[in-house]
Amino acid sequence: MATTRLLSDAEVEKIPDVKAVFDDIRATRKSDFVNNFWRGLANDPVSLKRVWEQLKVVMVADSAIDPLTKEMIYIAVSTANGCSYCVHSHTAAARAKGMTDAQHGELVSIIGLAGQTNHLVTAMQIPVDPQFEVR
Amino acid sequence: MATTRLLSDAEVEKIPDVKAVFDDIRATRKSDFVNNFWRGLANDPVSLKRVWEQLKVVMVADSAIDPLTKEMIYIAVSTANGCSYCVHSHTAAARAKGMTDAQHGELVSIIGLAGQTNHLVTAMQIPVDPQFEVR
Amino acid sequence: MATTRLLSDAEVEKIPDVKAVFDDIRATRKSDFVNNFWRGLANDPVSLKRVWEQLKVVMVADSAIDPLTKEMIYIAVSTANGCSYCVHSHTAAARAKGMTDAQHGELVSIIGLAGQTNHLVTAMQIPVDPQFEVR
Amino acid sequence: MATTRLLSDAEVEKIPDVKAVFDDIRATRKSDFVNNFWRGLANDPVSLKRVWEQLKVVMVADSAIDPLTKEMIYIAVSTANGCSYCVHSHTAAARAKGMTDAQHGELVSIIGLAGQTNHLVTAMQIPVDPQFEVR
Amino acid sequence: MATTRLLSDAEVEKIPDVKAVFDDIRATRKSDFVNNFWRGLANDPVSLKRVWEQLKVVMVADSAIDPLTKEMIYIAVSTANGCSYCVHSHTAAARAKGMTDAQHGELVSIIGLAGQTNHLVTAMQIPVDPQFEVR
Amino acid sequence: MATTRLLSDAEVEKIPDVKAVFDDIRATRKSDFVNNFWRGLANDPVSLKRVWEQLKVVMVADSAIDPLTKEMIYIAVSTANGCSYCVHSHTAAARAKGMTDAQHGELVSIIGLAGQTNHLVTAMQIPVDPQFEVR
Repeated sequence: MATTRLLSDAEVEKIPDVKAVFDDIRATRKSDFVNNFWRGLANDPVSLKRVWEQLKVVMVADSAIDPLTKEMIYIAVSTANGCSYCVHSHTAAARAKGMTDAQHGELVSIIGLAGQTNHLVTAMQIPVDPQFEVR
Repeated sequence: MATTRLLSDAEVEKIPDVKAVFDDIRATRKSDFVNNFWRGLANDPVSLKRVWEQLKVVMVADSAIDPLTKEMIYIAVSTANGCSYCVHSHTAAARAKGMTDAQHGELVSIIGLAGQTNHLVTAMQIPVDPQFEVR
Repeated sequence: MATTRLLSDAEVEKIPDVKAVFDDIRATRKSDFVNNFWRGLANDPVSLKRVWEQLKVVMVADSAIDPLTKEMIYIAVSTANGCSYCVHSHTAAARAKGMTDAQHGELVSIIGLAGQTNHLVTAMQIPVDPQFEVR
Repeated sequence: MATTRLLSDAEVEKIPDVKAVFDDIRATRKSDFVNNFWRGLANDPVSLKRVWEQLKVVMVADSAIDPLTKEMIYIAVSTANGCSYCVHSHTAAARAKGMTDAQHGELVSIIGLAGQTNHLVTAMQIPVDPQFEVR
Repeated sequence: MATTRLLSDAEVEKIPDVKAVFDDIRATRKSDFVNNFWRGLANDPVSLKRVWEQLKVVMVADSAIDPLTKEMIYIAVSTANGCSYCVHSHTAAARAKGMTDAQHGELVSIIGLAGQTNHLVTAMQIPVDPQFEVR
Repeated sequence: MATTRLLSDAEVEKIPDVKAVFDDIRATRKSDFVNNFWRGLANDPVSLKRVWEQLKVVMVADSAIDPLTKEMIYIAVSTANGCSYCVHSHTAAARAKGMTDAQHGELVSIIGLAGQTNHLVTAMQIPVDPQFEVR
């Protein structure tokens, strides 16, 4: 259960600013499905528009990192932050963009290994080597 | 300052099990530099060997995810976990593997955006859409 | 499902130290409802009393921060810590203390933005400006 | 040390898109001081502009939550995320907006108490009470 | 719902490398029950073997820390990381190794107190005392 | 640098409520050294007393978990929360209570392994086995 209402399509129909964003989500993704995240955010039309515009620029636009890699990075952050919804939605997105089972298995392994060495480093409080400094 | 001693090369020289791992790190990386993480872990030779063997398999071996993407995933996890040392060391590793300034800028943006939507989702406690279910 | 039992009112009735705390919770909150958190903590009567006494001082007592702001701060910490139960219970508490939908929408936005800039800062490892030093 | 360069005013002067944002930061804040966060983000002018525009809307604009409360919420998130830079910069911002020592002391107490109950709830895995459901 | 399939015993039967690990889990634990974690990890037989071998060395082998204390440390980390599954599985493991209700109550209290002081320290950004330095 | 002042012994001398707590810390620990955490918390005498009283009950009092194990649990939570100060102070406390190098090495290994499996579980979103339910 959410801490805010999830707007149905019927409700969205009545709020032009929200309707416009939902239309753009559907057009951009070439799919009629709008997931719950946007239905919760729709309670605050200004925030909805701002987050969607950002996502379009960062995740959808042509860029120096390919779309599948972007989704794998998103899964990595979401896992470390313990965001169950985000792990689910971005794993689905990564599969839709072609992530194979072998790549998913490896992604999980890298995330697990990073989790391990992050904890080892913090437990030992290892000081940063001067060689890592940006000049 | 660390919570454990960082072993110098002179000390490592006297512990054959540690020496063997340090030699392999240098040979695998084709560099004489062994960073502080391994010098801290060297206090526990069994753990040192286990972590290094794992890292070789997951991060160095040929696989379904390319080496630069692996480092970017590692940076993503380390950032979300707030591991300063790990962010430094893996950003240096990613640059050594060819990460451009444009890619780093985008990586930072994706991590930032994921941080934002993770928090939005958790604050609203959005329930997982059934469409994300693995069948 | 919990990792410990949740005590029913019938069970609480038989443990005087727990009963006294439950009575005080009901009297302080002017409500018969005692939520699951206290029913779990009731397995350890000393801890139950200590946590409740603390909550009364910090969250209920007259002070320099108003009660609604306190709940919003609590929601912010609970979100960043990924505590689903706590986000639910303190959002309900904030609404009971008068939080409007507009305030909730803004609170969610601030938490989201903080999540983003926290991640940007950590990914870039920005050093603290000397101007921020307390003198 | 950062994982990216921090741009000096002389460098910013040569990049019109970055210069425009820095000018707006100075005008909006009525201060010549531009802190390191923006100097790191300036490596990616598009991201710099997007994050600053967002911050202006969420943190600076007139709204349903007062400016000091916003900063206290920001400190709460930043603390739970362990972002040292962010705790420093937003504590300085909160003091500049009038946070008293008494309010800071209380804020610290609330954050500490939330940290405690978040951990207690997670250790006991308390299920959400149906009473907290949004209808 | 998981982001990967959980392998049934019938499926495991057909993959010799996975079957060998499951047999060893059953023999080591003297129980026919193999929990979901291993059924998810079984999608990647190399990772399954590596994680199980590690767990055997760290958690099962004779060592300087007793088995129950190890499980309590595991619960502590899992709680702070907000891993619901892990808190459940290791609390069950700790009880199976003899953890009493009194010990569980204390463990929960210590975790809660650490959560509180961790947050207090981070909110105040307390500098490390030189007396804590390892010489 | 802290976000609040650290009170010196000369300042503490002038605030009776703070002085009383500092005297009790020194008497309980049989040491003249009072670490920075208490000097920061001393800005809020009520909070100082409350946190110290709690710590005495949870960490110092006779109980079902031995003092060294308590410190190791504290280190585990502090590591997962990324609290550098807390890792330092409680590692020093654990050594003072007799933690050997072998025990520290194992503690670090367990924390690292838990960090790994926590991340693996969250990335795969493993559902809790019904066998782990408390009846």
